[in-house]
Amino acid sequence: MLKSINLCEFTPKEEIEDRIARLKKKMSESGISFAVIIQNVDLFYFTGSLQNGVLFVTIDEKPIFFVMKNLNRAVFETSLEITSIKKEKDVKDILTDMRLLKGKGGMELDVVPVAVFERWKGILDYDEITDISRLIKDIRLIKSPFELEQIKKSGEIIGHVFGKAKDVIKEGVREIDIDAALIAEGRRMGHQGFLRMRGLNQEMMSCYVTHGYSATMPSGADVPISGVGITPAIGQGASINTIKRDIPVLVDYGGGYNGYVTDETRAFVVGEMKDIFKKAHNVAADIIADAMEFGKEGVNGTEIFMRALKRAQKEKLEDYFMGYGEGKVGFIGHGLGLEINELPVITPRHKMLLQEGMVFAFEPKFIIPGEGAIGIEVDFIVRRHGLERVTDTSIDVVYL
Amino acid sequence: MLKSINLCEFTPKEEIEDRIARLKKKMSESGISFAVIIQNVDLFYFTGSLQNGVLFVTIDEKPIFFVMKNLNRAVFETSLEITSIKKEKDVKDILTDMRLLKGKGGMELDVVPVAVFERWKGILDYDEITDISRLIKDIRLIKSPFELEQIKKSGEIIGHVFGKAKDVIKEGVREIDIDAALIAEGRRMGHQGFLRMRGLNQEMMSCYVTHGYSATMPSGADVPISGVGITPAIGQGASINTIKRDIPVLVDYGGGYNGYVTDETRAFVVGEMKDIFKKAHNVAADIIADAMEFGKEGVNGTEIFMRALKRAQKEKLEDYFMGYGEGKVGFIGHGLGLEINELPVITPRHKMLLQEGMVFAFEPKFIIPGEGAIGIEVDFIVRRHGLERVTDTSIDVVYL
Repeated sequence: MLKSINLCEFTPKEEIEDRIARLKKKMSESGISFAVIIQNVDLFYFTGSLQNGVLFVTIDEKPIFFVMKNLNRAVFETSLEITSIKKEKDVKDILTDMRLLKGKGGMELDVVPVAVFERWKGILDYDEITDISRLIKDIRLIKSPFELEQIKKSGEIIGHVFGKAKDVIKEGVREIDIDAALIAEGRRMGHQGFLRMRGLNQEMMSCYVTHGYSATMPSGADVPISGVGITPAIGQGASINTIKRDIPVLVDYGGGYNGYVTDETRAFVVGEMKDIFKKAHNVAADIIADAMEFGKEGVNGTEIFMRALKRAQKEKLEDYFMGYGEGKVGFIGHGLGLEINELPVITPRHKMLLQEGMVFAFEPKFIIPGEGAIGIEVDFIVRRHGLERVTDTSIDVVYL
Repeated sequence: MLKSINLCEFTPKEEIEDRIARLKKKMSESGISFAVIIQNVDLFYFTGSLQNGVLFVTIDEKPIFFVMKNLNRAVFETSLEITSIKKEKDVKDILTDMRLLKGKGGMELDVVPVAVFERWKGILDYDEITDISRLIKDIRLIKSPFELEQIKKSGEIIGHVFGKAKDVIKEGVREIDIDAALIAEGRRMGHQGFLRMRGLNQEMMSCYVTHGYSATMPSGADVPISGVGITPAIGQGASINTIKRDIPVLVDYGGGYNGYVTDETRAFVVGEMKDIFKKAHNVAADIIADAMEFGKEGVNGTEIFMRALKRAQKEKLEDYFMGYGEGKVGFIGHGLGLEINELPVITPRHKMLLQEGMVFAFEPKFIIPGEGAIGIEVDFIVRRHGLERVTDTSIDVVYL
């Protein structure tokens, strides 16, 4: 286990208070009288606990954290007062007694299924409930110093795993063997076990080992490099493709500590690699250096994307930039936090002014069709005067 | 890789045709004129592909499989004709041209989030869409011979991993180290990478290594034994608890092959174990033997549960049966297939007549508070004249 990994690091009381205060403020600004939070990740964010429960927040009153199961664990985990309930229906009785069900309600309708929403409207006997998911995402977008600490620890797992990759990647070894060894190494070091991605059909592996053709094959997922996988039922991740000399192996690995996800990519090569790969890797490194120079609070994410694209165009690599043909994706960065697809998205498609405390993965990558893929992914924390790397792991190609 | 693991084993044409025919029949019986299937697992079930697409089924016409991305992979994977589209909106234009949007529509409203449902109603400009998730679950409930083959291969991974567990479980080793080694071993043998569980907040690990107190601690999840985990952000799975002599280690492991999930549990002990554990393990074995004797097509699942409970009561173990106190769960079995929480559920709470081709995990388990847990989990295929084990792995306690 890494020294930095603490077991059961609970979310501090002030942290929870601040998050709920920000939620109340946003609710007030949006004319939302009460919020009913049931998705596990949001529940963890606002309570510190992921037990089976429901968080009820109004603008003026203390939040009510209803817990069904497991009460003892919830008591340990949250600094909020807990209201123990036996069944969901109890929520309605308590809220009715307290006369708290009035005005416009809000739920996380980006993730709450229709049938669950209908059940809750029935339980509460209340119809006027609107979507507050954007409001919650906007709150979660800015990370507190406590969250940045968790993210850095998550990043330390990545650093360790990339170190291990040097020992594991060898000619003739299968992508899946490298995957197995790295996942195990991360877990032994304290990886939480899996990564979360928000929304219907959003699935995520902790490790993507891709090499040669399997790195060039697009998938249904909105990622530049997803791998082939070993079954059409999960068409992503490592395949049984074996490592050949002189062709880069990309290891895209996600750390996970205390819920917080990190996501970085490094390139490894047994032998030497072709000039096209070297050139593209250097351009990726330049794009990262430029982003660190240019990016800071107030800068628009669209500009960061466009500067990267221009750098690729200058080297005549634009056809390969962020995928090839049908597999091209329209972003170079995605927000990180408790989920791997948080805001901000760094894309030319919509404006997103960087603010201090945002965290995002930045992944200039190139697909050389028929040959392989190359690129780098690093995680950035937005600071007032620049971008700070989450890990201090080298971004150089590792020659084996 | 296990010999039985084939790469890219595609779903046969007749299989897809039969599934869609059954869907049409159920739709017709329920007065549903068209189905719009968008959840990835259902999409895989009815098309053989998990690419980014939408399946549109009417009672009388050929199904239309709209694919956005990745078209080439979808062509390989599915036996259905593909209609390539650029954006979701194209679905509406094509369906309008074909005059197929009429009558009552259906979607998977147990999993489709409210915002996604609203978006689709807007895209189709159609409001009369109802929940067909139960109908789809009922179709998926009965496994075809092809599916049973996939499930048996998934089970072979389990058998192999339990064999490996004998070498890995040692005094002083942490639960998390055992987890890491077993996950890696399964992956090297061809495990698909992760397991799927249907519904909001349903999260699943592939491996649960629990021992002593960590096996006795209930969680928010509706499972008899979930483990403590290493962070409140994922309060389940292996912990850093180290293995002590004479206390059982439970390994609850899920195979995953070509989408199909299996789920079995075995007990391991370094040294000897107390009589209470031995007794409870024997009762669990008796319960399994009795279920195999008694269970067959036409038997009610409630009876299977009640016979197991009575056996536990006879030995005065009912307080420990299927959890203790707050952690007790109300089922002894759950359906398996592409998701780990399929039908049937073996519970006293609702009637469920077994039918040939159902598959379920059966898990008589006992929590001895303050001491540890013991139990067995095996997977059954329902046959006309009995229950068939999915794996042939011994259910005896392994003494190390």
